[in-house]
Amino acid sequence: MFPEIDAGAFSGPPAATAIFTTVLTEGPVSRVALARRLGLSSAAVTKAARPLIDLGYLHELAATERSGPGAGRPASPLAVRAEREFFLGVKITADEVIGVVCDLRAQVQASARRPLDDPDVDAVLTEVGRLTDDLFGAFPGDRTRVHRLGLALSGDIDRSTGLVRYSPFLHWRDVPLGRLAAQRTGLTVTVENDVKALTAAEHWFGEGVGAESFALVTVGTGIGCGLVVNGRLVSGSHGVAGEIGHLTVDATGPDCHCGGRGCVESIAGTDAIVAQARHRTGRPDLTIAEAVGLARAGHEEVRRVFTRAGGAIGCAIAAVANLVGPTRIVVSGEGLAAYDLFDSHIRTSFERQAFGAAARCPLSIRPLPFEEWARGAAAVSIQSLVVP
Amino acid sequence: MFPEIDAGAFSGPPAATAIFTTVLTEGPVSRVALARRLGLSSAAVTKAARPLIDLGYLHELAATERSGPGAGRPASPLAVRAEREFFLGVKITADEVIGVVCDLRAQVQASARRPLDDPDVDAVLTEVGRLTDDLFGAFPGDRTRVHRLGLALSGDIDRSTGLVRYSPFLHWRDVPLGRLAAQRTGLTVTVENDVKALTAAEHWFGEGVGAESFALVTVGTGIGCGLVVNGRLVSGSHGVAGEIGHLTVDATGPDCHCGGRGCVESIAGTDAIVAQARHRTGRPDLTIAEAVGLARAGHEEVRRVFTRAGGAIGCAIAAVANLVGPTRIVVSGEGLAAYDLFDSHIRTSFERQAFGAAARCPLSIRPLPFEEWARGAAAVSIQSLVVP
Repeated sequence: MFPEIDAGAFSGPPAATAIFTTVLTEGPVSRVALARRLGLSSAAVTKAARPLIDLGYLHELAATERSGPGAGRPASPLAVRAEREFFLGVKITADEVIGVVCDLRAQVQASARRPLDDPDVDAVLTEVGRLTDDLFGAFPGDRTRVHRLGLALSGDIDRSTGLVRYSPFLHWRDVPLGRLAAQRTGLTVTVENDVKALTAAEHWFGEGVGAESFALVTVGTGIGCGLVVNGRLVSGSHGVAGEIGHLTVDATGPDCHCGGRGCVESIAGTDAIVAQARHRTGRPDLTIAEAVGLARAGHEEVRRVFTRAGGAIGCAIAAVANLVGPTRIVVSGEGLAAYDLFDSHIRTSFERQAFGAAARCPLSIRPLPFEEWARGAAAVSIQSLVVP
Repeated sequence: MFPEIDAGAFSGPPAATAIFTTVLTEGPVSRVALARRLGLSSAAVTKAARPLIDLGYLHELAATERSGPGAGRPASPLAVRAEREFFLGVKITADEVIGVVCDLRAQVQASARRPLDDPDVDAVLTEVGRLTDDLFGAFPGDRTRVHRLGLALSGDIDRSTGLVRYSPFLHWRDVPLGRLAAQRTGLTVTVENDVKALTAAEHWFGEGVGAESFALVTVGTGIGCGLVVNGRLVSGSHGVAGEIGHLTVDATGPDCHCGGRGCVESIAGTDAIVAQARHRTGRPDLTIAEAVGLARAGHEEVRRVFTRAGGAIGCAIAAVANLVGPTRIVVSGEGLAAYDLFDSHIRTSFERQAFGAAARCPLSIRPLPFEEWARGAAAVSIQSLVVP
């Protein structure tokens, strides 16, 4: 139906990339609006959009309006063909691989998951391979339109080369995961840090669309943050950015595994909450689920553990607002399953510590289904098509 | 000598702005290198540079090298004529106005200062007017080449309109300072927050040249931070950014005037240091100079005040490194006059709290002559010419 493109794929001039990005993330846009927005002539827009239309990624909607008084030609907005290509996204955790198939607009078409009981590189690759087979099996659409796979995992990742520099929970160092997964699956593979991948999904397809600046804070075993500033993801000159979990919020607080003191994660990470709840209850085998249960049942000492954790998270979020002033902040993650115990304390502490007008920054605090992480991986794969 | 330009001045196409910015901040650059860097054709560079040469802002250096094997034409790098135009910069403090005259490369040609004993808007404008007269008097160059004045002061400033939304130390709210100063002086006026102005100077003419990301931390009465991320100054969606002084670093620390608790400024701002030193010594009239003197003389209790302050500043700087990962961080300000008491504690605390590779971010800790603030104001004025 569409001309075939190879996996290296679309690599148009900068104008085509800008047009593709704008139409994909912001919906149908007229050529006139594109020209104005991108500082291009109408002729340049028409020329740069042509190959994208020929390849089937964009199409013209029926003319709906004239572009202005005296304008001779009707404006036919350009729109994306979401079904032109599909993308696999897989999140790798310590004990599971979770995958989705998304269309070009990151809408989930199918999902699957497999347990992982061996962190060895080859074992993980095998499970990723099996999961992609499962996803192909579950996907009702045209399998020949799947060329790309995005992988996401926590740790220090070099997206440009697909190298996992360090993954603490898999105990990997310098694993060329992108290259190995490409060999295993025959797909074009991207690898990205999981929080950055989730931020990419929010920036292109979620609450961050169109925002010059935007922050996503994830709360769970780790406490992370993805930042978009001046329109682009912040990657950190020395490979570190968004490490909100290691801001000091209590100079007299507990020592953190990172070597610091009073870090947010040492107070509000899942392990820290469990450790404190065990200490307060004298029950050395208490699980996080049991701690949540006790707090909900009104156990004062355990409730205080969550109160303190929410306060630390609120301080950290205020730090983001005070330093970079994002348009909005989304707070999410598996830790938010205990949303009811955290929410008000996060907000109270944020409001106290946000400086002046920074308190106007809206917070969206919401739980995060695990498939969302896999969708983040797919979003990075989509980005690799659009912005080569 | 040069064609006259009106004060609204240079407003070329985006390519001309990019060429002007690159040549101004990075020194002589060949057309070939400009074309490569900016993604333009050689013809586009030549065309866009032409008006800048005609107006006398740029000139061609003598051909020094051929652009490559087989290249037929010698490369004649484009360079800035620093003496083409001069700029006034004035920093307004609570008790003084300090001014400089700079050339187009922000090199100081003359300076002057006047006391200020009335924070009333009209009184301040009168002193600014007198200061510009003093500066014109002290300036040995061509007065007819001065068209612009940059003003800098602490507080909440809207650079785009020249409005001072709030200045705590002058007790101003919503003062249209840019418009009023333009009426008074007949110059084209820019107004910017003083920390952002200083950051602009470092970004274009100092240690931040060419850096995609960069942070400047100022230590004194207030503790501020200017941030450049993804190549541009961070201004904050809600008008707040770089408020490093109001990060919480000690949940059990003192209440801060902002309403927060354990803020960096409540531990390490000049007022906080004086208050703690008075408390420790039982001398209610102790000044900051006396506190510094006692600490240098070995007074253990007062030394601890500076140790704690340095620790808080180090935590805050680590927060900047962990969140946005700048290429480098400059720490400066009048508080650094007590450099010897702070330096090692800032570094120790930074190294402990910087997460992983974030500790590789180089810190430049150095005192700041007060004229530098005025030079920052001039740098913003230069930017207003180059990037209209």
